[in-house]
Amino acid sequence: MFFYREDLINMIVPDKPDPAAAKVLQETLGGQFGEMRTMMQFFFQSSNFRGQATQYRDLLRGVFLEELSHIELVQQTINQLLTGAGAEGAGQAGIDGAPLDEAIKHANPHHYIMGAQSSLPVDAGGNPWLGNYVYDHGNLVSNLLDNVVLESTGVLQKTRIYEMSTNKAFRETLGFLIVRDNAHQNAFAKALETLGVNWGKLFPVPNYDINKYPECQKYVDLGYHNAQFNFRLDQTRIAEIYSGQSPSRNGGELQVTEPPQGFPLPYMPELPNEHSPGLHDLNA
Amino acid sequence: MFFYREDLINMIVPDKPDPAAAKVLQETLGGQFGEMRTMMQFFFQSSNFRGQATQYRDLLRGVFLEELSHIELVQQTINQLLTGAGAEGAGQAGIDGAPLDEAIKHANPHHYIMGAQSSLPVDAGGNPWLGNYVYDHGNLVSNLLDNVVLESTGVLQKTRIYEMSTNKAFRETLGFLIVRDNAHQNAFAKALETLGVNWGKLFPVPNYDINKYPECQKYVDLGYHNAQFNFRLDQTRIAEIYSGQSPSRNGGELQVTEPPQGFPLPYMPELPNEHSPGLHDLNA
Amino acid sequence: MFFYREDLINMIVPDKPDPAAAKVLQETLGGQFGEMRTMMQFFFQSSNFRGQATQYRDLLRGVFLEELSHIELVQQTINQLLTGAGAEGAGQAGIDGAPLDEAIKHANPHHYIMGAQSSLPVDAGGNPWLGNYVYDHGNLVSNLLDNVVLESTGVLQKTRIYEMSTNKAFRETLGFLIVRDNAHQNAFAKALETLGVNWGKLFPVPNYDINKYPECQKYVDLGYHNAQFNFRLDQTRIAEIYSGQSPSRNGGELQVTEPPQGFPLPYMPELPNEHSPGLHDLNA
Amino acid sequence: MFFYREDLINMIVPDKPDPAAAKVLQETLGGQFGEMRTMMQFFFQSSNFRGQATQYRDLLRGVFLEELSHIELVQQTINQLLTGAGAEGAGQAGIDGAPLDEAIKHANPHHYIMGAQSSLPVDAGGNPWLGNYVYDHGNLVSNLLDNVVLESTGVLQKTRIYEMSTNKAFRETLGFLIVRDNAHQNAFAKALETLGVNWGKLFPVPNYDINKYPECQKYVDLGYHNAQFNFRLDQTRIAEIYSGQSPSRNGGELQVTEPPQGFPLPYMPELPNEHSPGLHDLNA
Amino acid sequence: MFFYREDLINMIVPDKPDPAAAKVLQETLGGQFGEMRTMMQFFFQSSNFRGQATQYRDLLRGVFLEELSHIELVQQTINQLLTGAGAEGAGQAGIDGAPLDEAIKHANPHHYIMGAQSSLPVDAGGNPWLGNYVYDHGNLVSNLLDNVVLESTGVLQKTRIYEMSTNKAFRETLGFLIVRDNAHQNAFAKALETLGVNWGKLFPVPNYDINKYPECQKYVDLGYHNAQFNFRLDQTRIAEIYSGQSPSRNGGELQVTEPPQGFPLPYMPELPNEHSPGLHDLNA
Amino acid sequence: MFFYREDLINMIVPDKPDPAAAKVLQETLGGQFGEMRTMMQFFFQSSNFRGQATQYRDLLRGVFLEELSHIELVQQTINQLLTGAGAEGAGQAGIDGAPLDEAIKHANPHHYIMGAQSSLPVDAGGNPWLGNYVYDHGNLVSNLLDNVVLESTGVLQKTRIYEMSTNKAFRETLGFLIVRDNAHQNAFAKALETLGVNWGKLFPVPNYDINKYPECQKYVDLGYHNAQFNFRLDQTRIAEIYSGQSPSRNGGELQVTEPPQGFPLPYMPELPNEHSPGLHDLNA
Repeated sequence: MFFYREDLINMIVPDKPDPAAAKVLQETLGGQFGEMRTMMQFFFQSSNFRGQATQYRDLLRGVFLEELSHIELVQQTINQLLTGAGAEGAGQAGIDGAPLDEAIKHANPHHYIMGAQSSLPVDAGGNPWLGNYVYDHGNLVSNLLDNVVLESTGVLQKTRIYEMSTNKAFRETLGFLIVRDNAHQNAFAKALETLGVNWGKLFPVPNYDINKYPECQKYVDLGYHNAQFNFRLDQTRIAEIYSGQSPSRNGGELQVTEPPQGFPLPYMPELPNEHSPGLHDLNA
Repeated sequence: MFFYREDLINMIVPDKPDPAAAKVLQETLGGQFGEMRTMMQFFFQSSNFRGQATQYRDLLRGVFLEELSHIELVQQTINQLLTGAGAEGAGQAGIDGAPLDEAIKHANPHHYIMGAQSSLPVDAGGNPWLGNYVYDHGNLVSNLLDNVVLESTGVLQKTRIYEMSTNKAFRETLGFLIVRDNAHQNAFAKALETLGVNWGKLFPVPNYDINKYPECQKYVDLGYHNAQFNFRLDQTRIAEIYSGQSPSRNGGELQVTEPPQGFPLPYMPELPNEHSPGLHDLNA
Repeated sequence: MFFYREDLINMIVPDKPDPAAAKVLQETLGGQFGEMRTMMQFFFQSSNFRGQATQYRDLLRGVFLEELSHIELVQQTINQLLTGAGAEGAGQAGIDGAPLDEAIKHANPHHYIMGAQSSLPVDAGGNPWLGNYVYDHGNLVSNLLDNVVLESTGVLQKTRIYEMSTNKAFRETLGFLIVRDNAHQNAFAKALETLGVNWGKLFPVPNYDINKYPECQKYVDLGYHNAQFNFRLDQTRIAEIYSGQSPSRNGGELQVTEPPQGFPLPYMPELPNEHSPGLHDLNA
Repeated sequence: MFFYREDLINMIVPDKPDPAAAKVLQETLGGQFGEMRTMMQFFFQSSNFRGQATQYRDLLRGVFLEELSHIELVQQTINQLLTGAGAEGAGQAGIDGAPLDEAIKHANPHHYIMGAQSSLPVDAGGNPWLGNYVYDHGNLVSNLLDNVVLESTGVLQKTRIYEMSTNKAFRETLGFLIVRDNAHQNAFAKALETLGVNWGKLFPVPNYDINKYPECQKYVDLGYHNAQFNFRLDQTRIAEIYSGQSPSRNGGELQVTEPPQGFPLPYMPELPNEHSPGLHDLNA
Repeated sequence: MFFYREDLINMIVPDKPDPAAAKVLQETLGGQFGEMRTMMQFFFQSSNFRGQATQYRDLLRGVFLEELSHIELVQQTINQLLTGAGAEGAGQAGIDGAPLDEAIKHANPHHYIMGAQSSLPVDAGGNPWLGNYVYDHGNLVSNLLDNVVLESTGVLQKTRIYEMSTNKAFRETLGFLIVRDNAHQNAFAKALETLGVNWGKLFPVPNYDINKYPECQKYVDLGYHNAQFNFRLDQTRIAEIYSGQSPSRNGGELQVTEPPQGFPLPYMPELPNEHSPGLHDLNA
Repeated sequence: MFFYREDLINMIVPDKPDPAAAKVLQETLGGQFGEMRTMMQFFFQSSNFRGQATQYRDLLRGVFLEELSHIELVQQTINQLLTGAGAEGAGQAGIDGAPLDEAIKHANPHHYIMGAQSSLPVDAGGNPWLGNYVYDHGNLVSNLLDNVVLESTGVLQKTRIYEMSTNKAFRETLGFLIVRDNAHQNAFAKALETLGVNWGKLFPVPNYDINKYPECQKYVDLGYHNAQFNFRLDQTRIAEIYSGQSPSRNGGELQVTEPPQGFPLPYMPELPNEHSPGLHDLNA
């Protein structure tokens, strides 16, 4: 069973709306290698795990739990990037102009038609999330290898998406997630080490220069690239895998730690002209 | 942020394998009106909620949290229905026979090709889950109405799926979920009552005869049709909505309660012939 | 604008339920070359038609209008094939048995889970109808050639589906539609003749032996293979194309005629155990 | 059987091309809550209707029939928004420039590659229409509730799309359809009233201020928000449901009326450079 | 079995990057009527061919083989259109700017997120290639007719895409493929001639004015519109079909010839900032 | 450019029809981890390769070329499994019985409706092949890791499919492909070795007992698990990677060799009742 505390796993840095950035950041939420996929993949792999080597099951479940809060973080980031985009005009806009005229030019139109300027379960191209993204073949080695590919692709994509806007909310979230993807890459690479692999200098994949992604630095200073946050309310064998020397050339010791203390969810203002939430409509 | 305790929300009743039942039960997991959809729909609706009427946001989030454990419950039920189906033969089957020959005839072949006799994010027809199942238009009334449709359809489908096998694990899980869908139907119907609707005798939808689904009775006796389990570790305003007279003709008082105490996850045996988890392969 | 009279374009011959036949007949309704596709394809081609050669537009629209009634005919045929399948048991079945246990073995499970034993917008494999089936490139020649392929494939598929059951309702509907597909094949082949093509002995495609599909004979005797039913309430130029010698080696004169007089829609009984329509539930 | 008269249900107001507006208006044609879906959903619900309460079947079928003419109206509106977009240059454009260079920047490229500047069965994001949009579970209450959600979402989306362009053809069609969606919302809400629901002040959803959508006013003055156009050539029981006090707070009496008198289909000019229809090619 | 020589079937003309052109050219690669579809369609039609009339099988296979090299040609053209788009900045871009900010505005974002500025198996709208594009019903006439539609649509689309950019690499590849599509149109039209059809003046479809597509002229001068390149290392009966008078009004003799001599594959530079191929990362 | 010789890469062992086996073997052709995906993935990875380390490009292309012949092999195997299934009866079957009645019960109905008892670009569940299966992110490490997952999953699935029928054609093709997948697993694992990884005893994945898959033994005796067939007509640097000690615990030396000598394509008889190829229809 799953429990919740209304705290974000990282902060949302205030900045201006940027619907073009929101559009591409959807890849990180609903894309083939985004947070919805990592969450669901590790959910199925842990629920379907066979046998008594439950330290691996606990590792898979541990990462799964964090992905739930990553989804929440990206949803809130997208919401901030979208909210307030478009010309002013709630109330009289319909007559005198087309306030969304400019906004939609580089935006996902569904962000305005379906979402009331909020996040959707789609990728950067607007394609809906698909169940066949989930890889779970019940074989621990192939599952772990696929998880390594997934986390590596996560970093790779985020370093590329990072180049698409200088928006601060956008880049802070990407920076945090790049570092966490590295930690999860370490988790699965380490699990394969316990099965006999020596990775040499292969990790991290890609081996990015942290100076190009300055938002990452503080998270590395906090040790987040080598930490596994523990969201279990009961016992877990995760530390039997996630401990000791990092499999990455960046070195350090892997450690299971407490999650961050949590950050407030931003307030989402009403959008009367979009009838969201529309409670005032009822009293009109 | 999300936390976890390794307990199922309901028991898995032991019974024989039944791959045909597993195939149709997938509708309840990965179908258009299944638990993956309810979970994701309420996740997006609560994260994207606008304005200060956060009692509605807390209601949406509260139901979302329970859906996570419903997914887990259905995964484990499907796993039990699949595990051990097929002829005996791990080890020599490949030479002398085709142990899965019969099993696949009325099964979803992907349960044996992809899953190692375990659950998948697909529906009863084998179609992968789709992001466009999620309804969130940011308007509270249309969202609540769609949620009522979703929970009503959930009950409707489950009463029909119920007729497809007498397997005890299958029917116990369906019975529990029918009653919980009724509770969630009550949640969203009640929220619409606070906005002025009087439902008359419309609910429950469908108005099934509980004597036909005897597994349901004990959950009704426990009051589960009028209870909202609370999975929050912090404060929630959910009881501002979920309290008072039930909107259903079945009557009773709506109450926010503690979740069930929890049930053990069944042990999933290794399947050496399917190379799951395949750790023995490494030592072969 | 579109008008309606509650009459089927052909009769539904009574016979026993046959859910396996219903499953494959879905190809004719929601398949890539089924009636939903022909209807939508000719709808788009006629609405998007450019220029003053409106005799072609009227031909496209004329066939489109008939396809609407074909959809209705196949829906009703599928409904009859499904209704009443499964063991007796409405009322007490839930306790003592699994009345749908056998029925679903060779059926599309969604016919029982979503449809209340009724038709769905999917194909024989359960795949939902897709908008990209529609071919309309705005070029008359390529559109007409594609329409010829579509109607030829329609006949080809129906002669193959015909071999999958001896059910009389199933075969009567297929027989009628085979002959009508031939008429529409003639329509588009004739239109290409007006643009200079001489088809030789190519049509009909395929050149089936009518003795193998005895249900067809009476429709041929009625001249339905060379008739274009006219559903227009105003003037139409269709006869400028659809007249004169048939382009098929089977010969005869093409003629625009009145539609058949119409046949009653079968009564669809209530299914209390499936809560369809469920009005009794409200009074329970 | 279905009949046709070449008349549009509403006028197409002349204005300049606007491919960006055409792109987003596709949501209203081929989107998850667009006219193709409403048409198909009510088609399936009415054909699959069970039992003797045929007044509900006639209501479903009545709305279905109008949706056919809505599809036609949106197709023609999109066609006008697209036709003539792009630089001049039919004939020599290929050598000296790229006449579609600018046009495609904010357009759906398939409007120029597939459609010859004409409508497609896709949504605003270019996703093809999907059969699983159709909701028909054979249960009258859940069907009607879903229809209410569908019509409410239709209005909600159209008020948002309305803000994306000031083009007159675009806004007139949206204005007309908003009012008609309200009439259909009333139809399904009223049907639920006959089953015991009292909606209070919930409808219309959303409760938009008509002054913001001035095109709507004349249709409201004509009573179109409370009228059900009758397209039946035979008897119908629709007025047993669609009559009496409107379920909307806007009040008024529901009435079954004759359809509008009809408006001419706009002439669609040839596009020689796009080879549409390409008959001149044959004589070149 | 299949063999390969590292030579392109046509040259890639150097020109500047143009990501908007790359986006629409994807239709020619991964679209419903693009080279991936032609390749796969003729692959399946030739492998599944029945009977002894193997001259038709050899024709189908012959065209299939060329389509493999067309895929390669379009991939390389797209790669050149993408490579180097975006601001300078590999190395420090992450800090000081968003080098892809402008590039993505009219681009397919997946070209930058998934592809490292390179081709993808998707269409101009970003929709992934779908197996149901392939038409193979095992009937020679319907297969050949569909192939004629496919090759005609190929030309039609390419003449429209041609108008979307003046980029030289883009237009040279389109010009070459237009002429080759004409040759393949001739192949399938001729095969239908052997079955009795007289096409009159129908072909080519569309009957474009070659002066509008000047890149085509040199390929016509080389006779490429009437040539079938032979990629077989053993005997083939293709010339039993592909010989004699062209079925096109443009006339000429059909001839089976040697393929072009081949052109070098362009060198694809590394993109360090995109971690492609990332080997330097490993030594960093 | 691509060349062809009409030889299969392995033999098709004669055996009886088995449509249920054909259905599941489709996974190996058109499934998410089947031959169409491996072919397309390595095609895109090699065409999009960046930089001067072309030994890796040659490795990717080398494996890609073989996958083309694997597609052909599986198509022919499926065709043999389907051809002749169903009761006798070409000619009079339509009247007296339903010859496909039994055949379709455990078959993919599209094998009989679309394919004329021949292969389709779909998976074991009938889902069409999807372009998003292709992984190419332009980063050599992530691409190679994904290729390892792909080839490992290929073996894993084939060992499971192997258990679904004892048909000899089915098992011979699976046995051959299992061994070739191992060779390709070695290819990509070895490439990662050159980048510093030491795999320990991880490969092969899964570490199957060859005695359970006796068809594999002769291919292992021929050294096929350590051979890379060379289909290049020009120079290739592939041996710079594919040589030396195998990365598998099974040991041996990797070697680039000539392809097998080739096997005849089976003759596919006409199916008059299915109108395939239907040439007799034209003379009827």
